[in-house]
Amino acid sequence: MKLKIQEVMIETGGPYIVIINNQDAELLDLHNGDRVKVSNGKKSIVAKIDIATDSTFIKKGRLGILRETLQKLNLKNNSTVNLSLEAKPQSIKFIKKKLFGEKLSKKEIKSIIEDIVANRIDDIELSYFVAACHTRLMDEEEIVNLTKAMIETGDRLNFRREYVVDKHCVGGVAGNRTTMIIVPIVSAHGLLMPKTSSRSITSPAGTADTMECLANVSFSIEKIKRIIKKTKACIVWGGAINLAPADDRIIKVEHPLAIDSRSQLIASILAKKASVGATHVLVDIPVGKGSKIENAHQAVSLKEQFEHIGKKIGIKITCILTDGSHPIGRGFGPNLEARDVLYVLKNSPEAPSDLKHKSVLMAGRILEMTKKAKKGKGYQMALNTLESGKAFEQFRKIVMAQGIKTLSPSMLKAGRFRIEVNAGKTGLITEINNDFISRIARIAGAPRDKGAGILLHANKNDKICRKDLIFTIYSNNKQRLGFAREFLKNHQPFTIK
Amino acid sequence: MKLKIQEVMIETGGPYIVIINNQDAELLDLHNGDRVKVSNGKKSIVAKIDIATDSTFIKKGRLGILRETLQKLNLKNNSTVNLSLEAKPQSIKFIKKKLFGEKLSKKEIKSIIEDIVANRIDDIELSYFVAACHTRLMDEEEIVNLTKAMIETGDRLNFRREYVVDKHCVGGVAGNRTTMIIVPIVSAHGLLMPKTSSRSITSPAGTADTMECLANVSFSIEKIKRIIKKTKACIVWGGAINLAPADDRIIKVEHPLAIDSRSQLIASILAKKASVGATHVLVDIPVGKGSKIENAHQAVSLKEQFEHIGKKIGIKITCILTDGSHPIGRGFGPNLEARDVLYVLKNSPEAPSDLKHKSVLMAGRILEMTKKAKKGKGYQMALNTLESGKAFEQFRKIVMAQGIKTLSPSMLKAGRFRIEVNAGKTGLITEINNDFISRIARIAGAPRDKGAGILLHANKNDKICRKDLIFTIYSNNKQRLGFAREFLKNHQPFTIK
Repeated sequence: MKLKIQEVMIETGGPYIVIINNQDAELLDLHNGDRVKVSNGKKSIVAKIDIATDSTFIKKGRLGILRETLQKLNLKNNSTVNLSLEAKPQSIKFIKKKLFGEKLSKKEIKSIIEDIVANRIDDIELSYFVAACHTRLMDEEEIVNLTKAMIETGDRLNFRREYVVDKHCVGGVAGNRTTMIIVPIVSAHGLLMPKTSSRSITSPAGTADTMECLANVSFSIEKIKRIIKKTKACIVWGGAINLAPADDRIIKVEHPLAIDSRSQLIASILAKKASVGATHVLVDIPVGKGSKIENAHQAVSLKEQFEHIGKKIGIKITCILTDGSHPIGRGFGPNLEARDVLYVLKNSPEAPSDLKHKSVLMAGRILEMTKKAKKGKGYQMALNTLESGKAFEQFRKIVMAQGIKTLSPSMLKAGRFRIEVNAGKTGLITEINNDFISRIARIAGAPRDKGAGILLHANKNDKICRKDLIFTIYSNNKQRLGFAREFLKNHQPFTIK
Repeated sequence: MKLKIQEVMIETGGPYIVIINNQDAELLDLHNGDRVKVSNGKKSIVAKIDIATDSTFIKKGRLGILRETLQKLNLKNNSTVNLSLEAKPQSIKFIKKKLFGEKLSKKEIKSIIEDIVANRIDDIELSYFVAACHTRLMDEEEIVNLTKAMIETGDRLNFRREYVVDKHCVGGVAGNRTTMIIVPIVSAHGLLMPKTSSRSITSPAGTADTMECLANVSFSIEKIKRIIKKTKACIVWGGAINLAPADDRIIKVEHPLAIDSRSQLIASILAKKASVGATHVLVDIPVGKGSKIENAHQAVSLKEQFEHIGKKIGIKITCILTDGSHPIGRGFGPNLEARDVLYVLKNSPEAPSDLKHKSVLMAGRILEMTKKAKKGKGYQMALNTLESGKAFEQFRKIVMAQGIKTLSPSMLKAGRFRIEVNAGKTGLITEINNDFISRIARIAGAPRDKGAGILLHANKNDKICRKDLIFTIYSNNKQRLGFAREFLKNHQPFTIK
């Protein structure tokens, strides 16, 4: 059936939706939620049907398409498209197969990933895929095939160099904003580091959210190439480009429950790294109570799986196990974390020493992996680069190339409203819970509210008095701050003994 | 924030959605998909935010609410409501807990079910709950608690009688429309049978879809009580009333993958039965290749679990194992199944004998369970009631009380378009695959297209010739018929040897 496009001014951020007049729907025997194919002869998409119950909204013969969808498809208001019924994609069957505990073949995994990228699978169906992989687990062969399928369904960078470096942290540690310090240190040594980062899934801020406080992070792939040509490095948001795009949709449905399954974790990371053309990747696996990986046994098994699967994808992976039992840095939330990064790069007295030393350690390791430093000499070399100001100089170049917002910590405002929290007890701080820190910061509005988050005034192993201020919660939204206060009642992040 | 309601003429059939102007969204720091509470002082709902990108659609100060939501909430266009941020419900945590394989407490299950009923959990989150129960399984205590929570969050009927009977089939067999025959037989003997049925999940038609071809099936609980007072029985759609309403939302997200997990199955059935006040319930467990339960071992374990959990809920459950290896009846799809039912009730020569005898067997068993018949005498008593025409007379009363559409098989039209399928091979029909029959009928448009479905021209164990017509596929939609033809290529429902 031919229909004329009517632009609809709603954003949903969800899968494609088209709206049809109820008389047309009856003619085509279409019902809410049915899958249809919309094509203009050249391009086509699969969308779900909503029905307009009144002709004043969508007239007979018209097809309402959301502006975000129109833009993605280069369709124009008032142009004519063809609407036809679309059968359920075959990959639904494979998702169900996995949910029943069976192993998926290479072809079946490819088919699922292609349908995810083409938006032919809706959020409910995708949630079942994530749940299936999470509860039924994937074996090594399936993870390799998942990774390859993710790479093949996206764009790729290719630098034709012996060393293209990258790093990744499997997460679970609040703060821990090492990327923005490592990239300038190693690229100051001439190494190519095309760093794409994600926005947060379960943390108060991802590197992309934090970097965005200082510079732009959304670029086309062509623009990224130009930035790298100029500065040898970049720190950009991976979601703005089409690298392993299936991953972004998967992350979106993992979000509501903050799920992070191992197969998705490995495939997601390796696919992104392979897509930017990385040859050598350092993976940080934080271990400890309250982080994602709670014991050394799990960490070693993850390390082995990473290095093994990396080899099959053609990337040299080096994993390091770090202390993940407490937050790294002082601020948690985009602006507060960006401040910490600037303090370290500027060698300011406010620099959190844990963040500084972990970043230098990792940068040193990358220098060793790429023969820039002799074995055992990387740390000192990286420290010199940082303390001499060369790393900040290189960071400034990257920020300028990406479009500077600020490099001044005082411009990075914390939220207008705050809750100040006292120790309530005299003693020794024996624990700071990563998970509670992250959740409080998120409840307060991070990462979308750049100023929201937590600022610590005391560290693990500090002795404190009852009336000492131990942390402040910031937010630009009073209601959210109220929720945070509520949550705090039963979830004290500090253990004082 | 106070906003004025603007009615939006779209139907989505999904969770509550409200649409806000982008300037208001910014003020409140709201983003697509955020949870908000909309209240008018008395009532409140939790909805998800969509953002209007243009003021001509939703003006500043207005809140777009879909007509279906307005109606549900008794809100009026142009009235003023208050909008506030809503924190994530705590039950999300419990869903995640189950997904990680932990057992849920009574309180946790209640909290999840309450949030499902109040629409505070979205489809993605609910999908994870279904997937978690499906892959992690629930133990008996969890299923009892799930059942109780479903009962307690809905309305209940209470007849204060020694015997209030009900029946259920766990499904998996195409056709098998016994309810519409059993209800008139047993209620003709004075037994109270307040039968609420569901629409189809994975079959070409549920009893509610089929009954709807002959009479109305959507009634308020008050109206149902009046129908039962008049005729001692009813055959209505359970979804129109508020009996164990959580179940309906769960079924909706099971639909895309046609999932049917054991814990949901038992809880769903027992909750519905308890809600209508049933004291004695006969459960039909079809066993055999291609049905839901493939072997006797599984069937016996399900039977034991049913009877055991029934006792804990206070219902006497009797399970019978029946042959589920082939479809029951001749037609599959609402109109075609309704025809079969009428042929049996009218003792017509076209009556499918498998449907007739299974229905009589089950009705007889219920007569024995309730002491209407002596042990071993139920079958003959039920058969007499059917063949004497008393069952049809009673069925006519029920149909009249519910608002008759037709009782004439010739009024029940098959779809306008058809595909006739020949045997293609001479031999003996050794198998008719339930699953393929159901899927072909559904692809052709059943149950929404009442005329869509399959009509068999041959049965299991028939000898046939190459050119014999074995079945016809009907549809009112040519495109759907094309999909059915495509599916048929690789999924032949008949095995001929």
